[in-house]
This record gives sequence, C-alpha cells and structure tokens, in this order.
Amino acid sequence: MNRESLSLKLIDQKLFVLDQQLLPQKEVWILVESIEHLIFCIKELKVRGAPLIGVTAAIALAVHSDKEESRDSLLKNLTLLRNARPTAVNLMNAMDRMANAIKNFGLDRSQLMLEAIKIFDQDLKLCEEMARVTAELISSGEQVLTHCNTGGLATVGIGTALGAIIYAHQNGKKIHVYVDETRPLLQGARLTTWELEKNKIPYTLICDNMASVLMKHKKITRVLVGADRICSNGDFANKIGTYSLAVNCQFHGIPFHVVAPKTTLDLTCKNGSEIPIEQRSKNEVLGLEGSFGKVTWAPENAICYNPSFDVTPFELVTTMTVDNVVYSQKDLIDGKLKEIN
Amino acid sequence: MNRESLSLKLIDQKLFVLDQQLLPQKEVWILVESIEHLIFCIKELKVRGAPLIGVTAAIALAVHSDKEESRDSLLKNLTLLRNARPTAVNLMNAMDRMANAIKNFGLDRSQLMLEAIKIFDQDLKLCEEMARVTAELISSGEQVLTHCNTGGLATVGIGTALGAIIYAHQNGKKIHVYVDETRPLLQGARLTTWELEKNKIPYTLICDNMASVLMKHKKITRVLVGADRICSNGDFANKIGTYSLAVNCQFHGIPFHVVAPKTTLDLTCKNGSEIPIEQRSKNEVLGLEGSFGKVTWAPENAICYNPSFDVTPFELVTTMTVDNVVYSQKDLIDGKLKEIN
Repeated sequence: MNRESLSLKLIDQKLFVLDQQLLPQKEVWILVESIEHLIFCIKELKVRGAPLIGVTAAIALAVHSDKEESRDSLLKNLTLLRNARPTAVNLMNAMDRMANAIKNFGLDRSQLMLEAIKIFDQDLKLCEEMARVTAELISSGEQVLTHCNTGGLATVGIGTALGAIIYAHQNGKKIHVYVDETRPLLQGARLTTWELEKNKIPYTLICDNMASVLMKHKKITRVLVGADRICSNGDFANKIGTYSLAVNCQFHGIPFHVVAPKTTLDLTCKNGSEIPIEQRSKNEVLGLEGSFGKVTWAPENAICYNPSFDVTPFELVTTMTVDNVVYSQKDLIDGKLKEIN
Repeated sequence: MNRESLSLKLIDQKLFVLDQQLLPQKEVWILVESIEHLIFCIKELKVRGAPLIGVTAAIALAVHSDKEESRDSLLKNLTLLRNARPTAVNLMNAMDRMANAIKNFGLDRSQLMLEAIKIFDQDLKLCEEMARVTAELISSGEQVLTHCNTGGLATVGIGTALGAIIYAHQNGKKIHVYVDETRPLLQGARLTTWELEKNKIPYTLICDNMASVLMKHKKITRVLVGADRICSNGDFANKIGTYSLAVNCQFHGIPFHVVAPKTTLDLTCKNGSEIPIEQRSKNEVLGLEGSFGKVTWAPENAICYNPSFDVTPFELVTTMTVDNVVYSQKDLIDGKLKEIN
C-alpha cells in the first residue's frame, strides 16, 4: 500500500510531503504528523495544486484515523481539512469520498486507506489520460505558455496542463515553454522551472506582465492552464492571472486550453459567479518570503488586494480537457460537462 | 539658478539625485560626481522616468562641463549619456538641445546651465499643463489604475499620468488609485505608493496580473499611463506591462489614457516597430534586489526574457495628452501629433 509521486510519499503508513515553499532552493520532505499539521501545510502552500491537495488530504485522514477517539471526531477533522482551501474543489470531492468511507467503515484504518489509495491511483491515471489527449493538440516546434504550476508537483501523476506539455516532449515533439512567474507566490518561477529542468525541456521565464507582448510578436502558439474548480457551464477558477491570459489570447487569436481531472468539476456551481474566491494575506503582495529569504519592498501599511484565484468565463476557452475527453467551446455551450459522471 | 524637485536638487552648481532604488525604505540623496556617475545611476535605475532622465542629464552636462578639456570631450560624454537609456526619447531630445548649446557656447558653463535650466522649467510647466487638462477627464468617485511610476519621481514637476491623478485629488475630487506593482523593478509598489502616501491619496496595491479581474468586476473606471517614446502615428513605448493593460481595457470597454510631455515625441519614428526596446539583465526576473535586500527564487541558470518596455498601438489609446492638449484616437489617426512643434 505504499505510493510515491514527485511531491508525496506514503511509506509504511507514514505520509511525507515535499515542502513546495522551499523549492527550488531546497528539497525538504515533511512528515505529516497530524491532520492539523496538513491543514497548516495547505494554508502555507507547502502542499498545493488542486488535485494534489485532494489526494494528500484523503491519505492524511486515513493515516491519522487511528488517533481518533470516534467517528465523529474524525469527521470533525475532515470538515476542518475540507475548509483549508475554499476554492479548490478537488479537496471537497476527496473529502466527500472519505466521509462516505468513514460512514461505512468507521475508524477502520485499512478500509479508509483503501479508499485514499483509490483516490491516489485515480489521479495518477487521469493525469496520464489528460496528458495524452491534450498533447495531441500540440505540434512539434510550438512555443507554449503556461501559468502557475500544473505538473507533477500539483498532482500525483504527470500533471494537468504541464503534464500535457511534458507528455508531448516525452513523445519526441520539440516544445519551448514560456513560464509565467505567477506573482504573488511565484509557483511558475520556482516550481514549473524546477519541473522543466528535471524533464530537460527548454523554457524561458518571464514576468506575468510580459506574456501579452510575446503574443503580439507571435512568440506564443498556445496557452495551457489548469483549473481549481470548473462549473457546469465551463466557467472555471484558476490561479490569479489566468483570466488576463485568456483575455489576451482572445485578443491575439491564440488558442487557450484548460486541462483538469473530473475531480475538479463542481456541477453544483452553475457559473463562475458562484465560486468562492480565497483572499490571502497582504504580506504576499507587500513583499516575498521563501527559502530564498524574506523581503518587503512596499510601504507596510499599504492596503492590498490579493485574491488567490480568478474566474475565466467559458467564452474565452478554446478547449477544456476533462480526463480523456477534449471538449470544444461548442461542447461546453451544448452542456457536455453536465453529462460527466 | 538653484532648482529643486521631489527627486532632483541643483544647489550651488551641485547636482543631487534621490536614489529611487532605495525607496520607499530609505531616502538617500546622491551627489552626482561626474557624467559617468550619472550614466551609472541611470543604468541602475537610481534615476528613472523618461522626463526626469532628460532633465537630469542636461543639468549634469552643464554642472560637469568645467571638468572637460575641450568641446569635443564634452560632446563625447554627451554621446555616452545619450545612450544610457535607449528607449526613452526625452533623453535624446534634451541631449540634442545641449549639443546645440555646446556648439554655440563651447564650455561656457553659465550658458550651458541656462539651457539646462530652461529644460527643467519646461518640464515643470508641461507637467502642470498635462495634469490640469487630463484631470478634467476624471470625475469624483472614480477608481483609476496606473502602472509603473509617472509622478514627481519621474519628472521634475507633478508628473504625467500620476500627476493628473494627484491634480484631480488636489482639486477636491475623490479618487481611489489601484497601483500595479510593476514587475520586475516594482516602481509601482515602491515609488507610486510612496508618492500617493505623501499626497494622502487612498490606494490599493496589486500584482500586475490582478488588474484584469478588477476590470471584469468594474472596479476600475479608467487606466492612466505615461510614455517613454511616442511615434508620429500615436504608437508609444512605455514600461513593460502597459500593452497588456491596454488590451484588457479594450476588452472590458475601459478608457485607456496616455499622458506625456512633448519631449517624449519622436516624430522620426513612424510607428512602434521602429522603437528600440532595451533588454535588461535576467537577474531582475530571477529575483529581486533593492534596499529591502536581495533574493533569488528561480533556478540561476534559467533563461529569461526581460524587455524594459513594450509598445502599445494607437488603436488601443482612448486619449493621449501631450502638453496641454488631449488628443482623441481620431486626432491620432488624423495625424495631429505630426503638427506638434
């Protein structure tokens, strides 16, 4: 029952997570000592990426179920965990499955672990499928832009959007990647660069505000992003900055692709206005903190706006990959997402 | 013959500049000891802002003309200074005027100083005019976004785009300012915030990739930016990130205004494709350095793209203020800029 991915290790009933706030300077694995500890790790973005959060939370619940006194105390912890990242719906989906398992099996750790492992294995398989079908959209010689991190650090498999890029590269296509640094937390500059180097894929790092002029100069052939929550109409939430990219793609006539597993779907959300958006600390905008150090450059009393995500309407989406199906914008309009089980 | 502005002091033939790389943490004035020293300060962005660079360079030439052995050696230094910032045309315009003065008066310092002072006084007056006519576009209660820094730190007067905002505030209009942090060098987060605080104007600091979603939610009523070079057709270069804002304004139906003195005009440039764009060090993208410290978060061998400016076509401009005239897009199409002396 052991499992291992780029950023998660389940070994002999012990759960370890790679501290993503320390990358790329340091590769430090954290032993998750309790559910509270994992909640802390999620809030601090040590564990991040919507699919990864869901899988990790499920495994943590199973691992630490033996410390609970009752089914109710475990369910109480499950609720706390569920609220650790309000926008990403994969976490809610995973928690629903675990709540169901707890209802059926109580504190039976091996049964709960079986369910958590199923969630892990599903994510792994879905990544492979998403990568394969999405990579078909990319031709050799293309220059694609991606935002935030959506690779093996955001999932337990090859990734979502970045997974498709890695898959295309592994299958012999010549790809150059433009990496948005992704302020405020720099997941692009720190994590996507790290993954691309590991995969020996050539890339150019840019600040977020440089993507537009690259599009103008026809240096970007398409944009691929992940999602943290997809509504039934195809509107979706993703890392802040995604919407601006989608607007720029529309203006420049550049295809804009979304890639996510079905665990990202929230069919109870009819459209993007129903997605709650997490606001984060102003310290992330006033400056930066990481394994590289801590700096504050703006006046400390400045008022800041710091939404973790933004919502992009389906009208700006060229294709949306969910599992092994690539939906066109017309498919979204035709309500095809609603047919997914 | 003394002169003083927010970021430049000419006192008893000594030129001091405020080190803008140290703001807002420290207010340190640098005595400009030579023309080479000023070139260093411009390259390091200690002195920045297209109009300010032009004025400062003119004064430095006059101040240090007494150290030169011949007219030719001063002209040689003038050429070096002219090339310190290749995109900003105000510098070239100021250097043309000083070259002419040197041709007429040789190393006569008081004559050269007279010309430099004229350039200073002209910038001061033009700022006032730009601010006054542009502020008329802004109503009380508006929420305007600005990029980079275009205030009293970028000119020797009230500023260009930020000058208009400050002017509107000083004349009793209630204005809220959204400040783009302006990666990579954070002129918005460090300098515009500092000026807004000095002027007691309420503001909200955001990362560059957040402007778009604020527009979507109708939180931004208009965008005002400066310019580093304006072509005869109205295309203009400005700090990287400006073009993306213009695209987003177009998409959301939000007015996009450019404010600059006529010293920013380059009528020899027919359109934006003729503007040279300065590429800067990749270190600015890999991390950050300032009085707040030095950090590097991305892999040090990463390839980066770091253009200091981008070019926005006139088609995306709602109005362009040059001195005391507000040109509409139709005026630009009708060639009205070409009629400016």
